[in-house]
Amino acid sequence: MSCNNAYWMWYPGDLEFYHAMKQNFSRVERGCAWPAFWKSEGFHSRVAFRREYELRQATAFSVLGVAGSQGYVQFDDEKHPFGEEILCGPGKHRISIHIGCIGCVPSVYVSGECIRSGAGWTVEDYDRDPVPAAFNRYFTDPERDPADWPMAEKAYLPVSEEEINGGILFSFETELTAALELSGSGCPVVFLGESRPEALDTENCYYSCVPDPVTRRCPRQAMRYAFLPGVKTGQYRVRAIHQYVDIPVQASFHSDDPVLDRIFSVAAHTFMLCSGVFFLDGIKRDKWIWGGDAYQSQFVNRYLTADREIEKRTLIALRGNDPVTTHVNTILDYSLLWILSVGTYFESYGDRAFVDAMLPKMESMMELCMSQREEHGFIVGRKRDWLFVDWADFDRDGPLCAEQMLLAACYRLMGELLPGAAGEKYRDANKDLLRRIEELFWDEEQGAYIDSFTSGRRHVTRHASIFAVLFDFADEPRKRRIAESVLFNDAVPVITTPYFRFFELEALCRLGYLREAMDAIKAYWGGMLELGAVTFWEEYDPKKPLEAQYEMYGDPYGKSLCHAWAASPIYLIARYFVGLRALEPGGRSYEVRPAPGCFRELDCRFPMGGKNLHITLKDGALSVEEN
Amino acid sequence: MSCNNAYWMWYPGDLEFYHAMKQNFSRVERGCAWPAFWKSEGFHSRVAFRREYELRQATAFSVLGVAGSQGYVQFDDEKHPFGEEILCGPGKHRISIHIGCIGCVPSVYVSGECIRSGAGWTVEDYDRDPVPAAFNRYFTDPERDPADWPMAEKAYLPVSEEEINGGILFSFETELTAALELSGSGCPVVFLGESRPEALDTENCYYSCVPDPVTRRCPRQAMRYAFLPGVKTGQYRVRAIHQYVDIPVQASFHSDDPVLDRIFSVAAHTFMLCSGVFFLDGIKRDKWIWGGDAYQSQFVNRYLTADREIEKRTLIALRGNDPVTTHVNTILDYSLLWILSVGTYFESYGDRAFVDAMLPKMESMMELCMSQREEHGFIVGRKRDWLFVDWADFDRDGPLCAEQMLLAACYRLMGELLPGAAGEKYRDANKDLLRRIEELFWDEEQGAYIDSFTSGRRHVTRHASIFAVLFDFADEPRKRRIAESVLFNDAVPVITTPYFRFFELEALCRLGYLREAMDAIKAYWGGMLELGAVTFWEEYDPKKPLEAQYEMYGDPYGKSLCHAWAASPIYLIARYFVGLRALEPGGRSYEVRPAPGCFRELDCRFPMGGKNLHITLKDGALSVEEN
Repeated sequence: MSCNNAYWMWYPGDLEFYHAMKQNFSRVERGCAWPAFWKSEGFHSRVAFRREYELRQATAFSVLGVAGSQGYVQFDDEKHPFGEEILCGPGKHRISIHIGCIGCVPSVYVSGECIRSGAGWTVEDYDRDPVPAAFNRYFTDPERDPADWPMAEKAYLPVSEEEINGGILFSFETELTAALELSGSGCPVVFLGESRPEALDTENCYYSCVPDPVTRRCPRQAMRYAFLPGVKTGQYRVRAIHQYVDIPVQASFHSDDPVLDRIFSVAAHTFMLCSGVFFLDGIKRDKWIWGGDAYQSQFVNRYLTADREIEKRTLIALRGNDPVTTHVNTILDYSLLWILSVGTYFESYGDRAFVDAMLPKMESMMELCMSQREEHGFIVGRKRDWLFVDWADFDRDGPLCAEQMLLAACYRLMGELLPGAAGEKYRDANKDLLRRIEELFWDEEQGAYIDSFTSGRRHVTRHASIFAVLFDFADEPRKRRIAESVLFNDAVPVITTPYFRFFELEALCRLGYLREAMDAIKAYWGGMLELGAVTFWEEYDPKKPLEAQYEMYGDPYGKSLCHAWAASPIYLIARYFVGLRALEPGGRSYEVRPAPGCFRELDCRFPMGGKNLHITLKDGALSVEEN
Repeated sequence: MSCNNAYWMWYPGDLEFYHAMKQNFSRVERGCAWPAFWKSEGFHSRVAFRREYELRQATAFSVLGVAGSQGYVQFDDEKHPFGEEILCGPGKHRISIHIGCIGCVPSVYVSGECIRSGAGWTVEDYDRDPVPAAFNRYFTDPERDPADWPMAEKAYLPVSEEEINGGILFSFETELTAALELSGSGCPVVFLGESRPEALDTENCYYSCVPDPVTRRCPRQAMRYAFLPGVKTGQYRVRAIHQYVDIPVQASFHSDDPVLDRIFSVAAHTFMLCSGVFFLDGIKRDKWIWGGDAYQSQFVNRYLTADREIEKRTLIALRGNDPVTTHVNTILDYSLLWILSVGTYFESYGDRAFVDAMLPKMESMMELCMSQREEHGFIVGRKRDWLFVDWADFDRDGPLCAEQMLLAACYRLMGELLPGAAGEKYRDANKDLLRRIEELFWDEEQGAYIDSFTSGRRHVTRHASIFAVLFDFADEPRKRRIAESVLFNDAVPVITTPYFRFFELEALCRLGYLREAMDAIKAYWGGMLELGAVTFWEEYDPKKPLEAQYEMYGDPYGKSLCHAWAASPIYLIARYFVGLRALEPGGRSYEVRPAPGCFRELDCRFPMGGKNLHITLKDGALSVEEN
């Protein structure tokens, strides 16, 4: 914390809940706003901040409230309105700031030489004991209150301008989340596309707009192409003002394999576009904060930015307030993945304080999940719960095996995080559940976990087996068996989504099938590059030509061309091919063990344990330099 | 419901929670906004409205969302933005409206010939089963969305204009909640006062402002006097634009006693000023919604407007959302009074549907209260709970008797409202608690209930005994004993607040001491009239001269001069002196039995059982005409 700055401050969680709603309500498709279809949690509307000061000399301070708020400052026995300079003599003083705000996070900014907002203040919500007030490095400017997240900006000029279909198509070198800015008079309609066909298809294009007559800017939107119909060359010049949350990238990757280098670089660009205030799924559609996507983003982020703040914001936002009555994004497995996400966060940063702050919410979430167990202790859905796991043809009769794997992993994590008796019930539940899974879901004959034991169909998909590998529920012989009878068995339906493909590729890596994993990475991600991808897509079917790639969910441009889960090569490359892994939570000790025979040369950087590692491999010599 | 109108609609409770926050955050004193110091509950931020239509012919409709909202309309398989006209052919159609809104109640307005918002729509919150959407008669104009409550206006001209203290003092005939409007150029500072001394005291006046340069209006504020310093006669003309929620008064009272007539009339004016979107305590200070004040307002309202809507709004707003973790206004006894308020509402209107809608919240509130019982079953406060009862010197050691009386009354009500086994536990608890009260709080020697049985001081105040009379926990001999040893015993500290004086006067009436009650009414309220009151005050000390009446809470103008609880004569006159009372909840049967010897003549109107009764007494003949 800088001594020169004050910080806007608020009740912990409020900023995240508020901005998560802004984010989840920001989806717009063809003129229709589409707010996310789950319970959206509110921030507090009335809080009070307090602090005592012991002053050596006279000083002054003043307090600002967020726009639209009502409140006052209590300085010892005096009341002062917001905005007034308050003079204070030496000695002991008690300050409290009272604020109510309906439309935005009730937040305040205290500026003065000695008295200012930030660390040292508590906040209370008139329900529970006061807690330390929250603040962050993005909100230090008294002129920019927490209603809007301050974005960094970078201007891009188009790389081409083309007369086509009676108008002009501007193309940019890559995809951006940008406010298109026009110079030239008049306000023509602009069609924005992630792809060239989308921008030109004025009928089906997702996003069209008219620039604001004063700022000359269109709203911020995912875009690479901008089409202005009915416009002549030279009539307008345009710039794309890329707007982003500035999170420094800490990784780079160069090897003797230029395709892999390019995959890493495009994956990094893709991931950073999808990482703003929160981890998003994609930047065009749907821009919502999803628990499953966020869980995967954590693994990438650990090796790319190691910015723990975006992870905390995302975890807080996803979970919402207690009491918890609905699942993360309505999805049962996303609630379980949320719990595992806190464990993943701890592994990445060794930050026990945040884990401890989340523990009560992990426990209440576990209670909700545990309330949904049937007679064998298996978790099942309630009315309105979505049991997703993946887009796949599961046998959904009765309890689903993959959900039980996640539940068992949650039990284990809770048992590890909670000491003594508090953790005992989870450790016991983990043992019982694994025994029951073994008894009712493992099919010795098929060498696989079946989806359902109640239907009698004994149907096998890959998902439960993949989780058994990743969570180490299967022992070595069992893992070999799974590899043979599930992962390399063409009779078991293939994974069709890159979302679950992430888990499957990691399972392959865990099992030592690095060559197979590398081939898969180069085929799938390299295939996208060959089609000219500048960001990686939500899904890619190598069998289809480029012009057939944009359709998804029955919509001609439904596919997101910049999707976070498509950045998984960063994690897989760093963790399994460069072979960098932490040996303890937070990574103060770590190992680097490049996959044998994989690279002749390496020159890369990754964050680890608060340091930046410069890893080189040349002429068989590995070197690791800590910066 | 009119066929020509559509209604804004929202999730039940959301409008009340939102406007309650606006109300409770609207207090301003000498430039300091002072939002109410209790947990303030949020409305939903994401809901969906649904309805199916079977159309005989083609029609069209369109949907508006509240300002600042995001959403779309799903019409069968099509999506449409808000504001677009949607054409529909004959046949069966499914419509859903999806809306997210952070800053205001997510509410929508559907207009069309056949398809429009109002009754018949459901709304869901992505947590529980859909419920019927809420709407009301105040929100029928598409141009005026639920962000602001539409106020009726009436302009008042000043009755005098006086050069004084180097400026002009404008006086109005009575107190108003008005936006002062200036004609004349420039924007002078205006000081507004409930009293003449307050307006002239530019140092200590509660409210000063500068008119908006465009509308020429000051913000709406309680006022009777407006002082413009440094201004000359003729420089400005002013009007007070009284702004109010239009709730028709249904009562009038004329008797052979002009003082009583005047008391009734001023009480009615006072009460209507304090009755807006919700029952308020006062109109200058603090304009908050208080559970104890609201409970009393219900009794007055029953006989004055019989407007059940303001009661429902107030009850919904006070209670907030489940789970309930804090008490109404932080006050334990106000939580108990809230429960009793639902019973009072039922007595007034016989509206079982609303009671049933509130029952789950009554039960959860009872659960919270019952979780605070000590070993004898007596309710005690938690950290941060305020045990108010009244401003009085109670012996607050251990459980307080008056709180137990309220708890016993709540048990009885719950036992009456809940049939069979569900009510049994409350009926049992009521018996047990009354037995324990008798055992530990009744002091046979003093003929009174003691405040505390744990301190050994056996201190007596009037409050518990008054509740024992009002709730009929004391039998006839016990009531006589209480009258003698408590109510008419000067050694027991007198009630000092008009709040509890309401209860005491009603106890006197119940015990048949009508003459004493009438004398008290005429002395206290008549005393205020003699000092020139045009509205009744928060408190009145007959021993002080007028100029010493404005101080309260250590503030020279701290006293509210227009306070709801001061309207109690309306209830006491109607119920006990005119002798009008319902014989069943809702008052479809009732009796009128004027207090013997009290009036020679009566000509009054009161609402009862959905009718308006014209009651006359002349030459010993009583007549009741139903309109």
